[in-house]
Amino acid sequence: VAQPVRIAVDVASGDFGTGEMVRGVLEAQRVWGDAFAPVLCGDRGAIERTLAEAGVKWPVDGMRIEHCPDTLQPSDVPSRAWKRRQRAAIVRCIALQREGAVDATVSAGDTGVLLAGAVFILGRLSGVSRPALAATLPTMAGRPALLLDVGANVDCRAGHLLSFARLGCEYIGRSAGVAAPRVALLNVGAERSKGTRLIAEAHRLIQRECGGYCGYIEAGRVFSGDADVIVCDGFAGNVLLKVCQGFYAITETLLAGSPQILETVKSRMAILNSESYGAVPLLGIRGVVLKAHGNSSARAVASAVGTTLAAAHRGVVTLDGAGGMKGHRHAHER
Amino acid sequence: VAQPVRIAVDVASGDFGTGEMVRGVLEAQRVWGDAFAPVLCGDRGAIERTLAEAGVKWPVDGMRIEHCPDTLQPSDVPSRAWKRRQRAAIVRCIALQREGAVDATVSAGDTGVLLAGAVFILGRLSGVSRPALAATLPTMAGRPALLLDVGANVDCRAGHLLSFARLGCEYIGRSAGVAAPRVALLNVGAERSKGTRLIAEAHRLIQRECGGYCGYIEAGRVFSGDADVIVCDGFAGNVLLKVCQGFYAITETLLAGSPQILETVKSRMAILNSESYGAVPLLGIRGVVLKAHGNSSARAVASAVGTTLAAAHRGVVTLDGAGGMKGHRHAHER
Repeated sequence: VAQPVRIAVDVASGDFGTGEMVRGVLEAQRVWGDAFAPVLCGDRGAIERTLAEAGVKWPVDGMRIEHCPDTLQPSDVPSRAWKRRQRAAIVRCIALQREGAVDATVSAGDTGVLLAGAVFILGRLSGVSRPALAATLPTMAGRPALLLDVGANVDCRAGHLLSFARLGCEYIGRSAGVAAPRVALLNVGAERSKGTRLIAEAHRLIQRECGGYCGYIEAGRVFSGDADVIVCDGFAGNVLLKVCQGFYAITETLLAGSPQILETVKSRMAILNSESYGAVPLLGIRGVVLKAHGNSSARAVASAVGTTLAAAHRGVVTLDGAGGMKGHRHAHER
Repeated sequence: VAQPVRIAVDVASGDFGTGEMVRGVLEAQRVWGDAFAPVLCGDRGAIERTLAEAGVKWPVDGMRIEHCPDTLQPSDVPSRAWKRRQRAAIVRCIALQREGAVDATVSAGDTGVLLAGAVFILGRLSGVSRPALAATLPTMAGRPALLLDVGANVDCRAGHLLSFARLGCEYIGRSAGVAAPRVALLNVGAERSKGTRLIAEAHRLIQRECGGYCGYIEAGRVFSGDADVIVCDGFAGNVLLKVCQGFYAITETLLAGSPQILETVKSRMAILNSESYGAVPLLGIRGVVLKAHGNSSARAVASAVGTTLAAAHRGVVTLDGAGGMKGHRHAHER
């Protein structure tokens, strides 16, 4: 029998509070059962109240509560909160991974805090200057495309974009079995003269350093299947991903009266539905850390746990110093 | 009887060649009849061939051909092409407006060439550092939101974003009758700590200088109706607009088997359909210049001509040096 994957869930995060997060974990348990063992990181009192309300009798086999008495304050600087708020859930759930107590971590909390925590507590992979959040997009060609960064690094240099290209190639090879990924750089046009100074510089660098590079791609073509890995800074990527989610929500509303057709659209575009795509992995760190949408409902949290479970099974991405690639599975499977 | 609006159409632009552009103008004539008088700027031979193929007997009342023997070359620097290629259609159609021979100009050509041509031939409005392309988005609240810049300026400073905020307020007041527009800055989150250095600086500046400013907006909320004017750099805006068009195209494909529902979606989201939104105005210049999608079909060109006609009727936006606003109608109506 396979060991359950131990997942630390930051239930103190998310716009809807601990109750919604805990209900999400319970929903995930109904779907994935014993495949994972959650460690609920947050306020013990709030967690126990929600469990009681849901009719769950404590203790529960394979479920653990990690009481985290501290919370982030508006005055906290995201890049330093990991040090100052070690007893806050978002920091503690990463530390548990470092200590070997869990295999993977998922949080709907602040991206900056999560990123800095992952970098400073777990460490970066060698050769990676900036870890990146990678989202999976549906394409008309059937196979998915990977978009990164979608929000971990809003101010980027060309070298960071090259790093994203490498992380993306390795990850899509592992997650979707794409052997020779085609890499494209997101730009405002396909012509050579288009784009910012950053884009022009990154184009030259990635062309020189990255085998599968095939040039610029416009945002209107990200669903075309023309590229397997689409590289951009975290600002543009976040805008792209979130506007898709906004558009998806409108489409759902417009189709509300036609449930059958809505199902068709949902099944094809589910990946853009923030309720079902769940969470995006942070690539380039020595661990398995996923970021869920701050706006996550219980259903979205359940999906996020499912995505985290899959990511833990897949193992983390490792780049060696020369930009070559090797992988390893999560700690307790080795 | 109102005079027809004289519109210079750069038929040498667009991915599908002169024939497609000219067919678009003919389609526009079938819809708007005598409301406009096109001046077709391009290669006379190619234009005449298309007219003959379409069964149009030359001369046509109210239609004029402006022969433009030169074409842009890949070696042309966009910002200098207006000087070097004065006999190219994209430059000539702006010069015709400067000479008073037309009231408005529309081109599907290179944004950089069009922008530099408009700035150097027609001139910027006083107080405007950078003109911007402004796209109209549908919202769930029913009234449209204006997004700018969508591609004229990919490298921006904070002052440029303030300028876009002012241009946007003036334009949406004039085009949609919004009296006190709510202005928002596109960002990766709504919290104060989010975003790039540019965004943080623009936030402080716009907050100080712009009355209707209400803070950050995430890309997922652009369709919410929370803001009337959404300000961003031309890279992010272009990504946002084009990915919507890409998503719209997927949705159309998924709904192809259900014509009735497709119609519902089309009518509500038409504004994101590149075939029907037509063209986006360049705000901040002394004239009426619109940019159509490079990828324009004849139907899209017809829509672009219609949008240009409406923009010419509305007149151009004028900001005075102090950032206050006044307007004037196009030249031959004064």
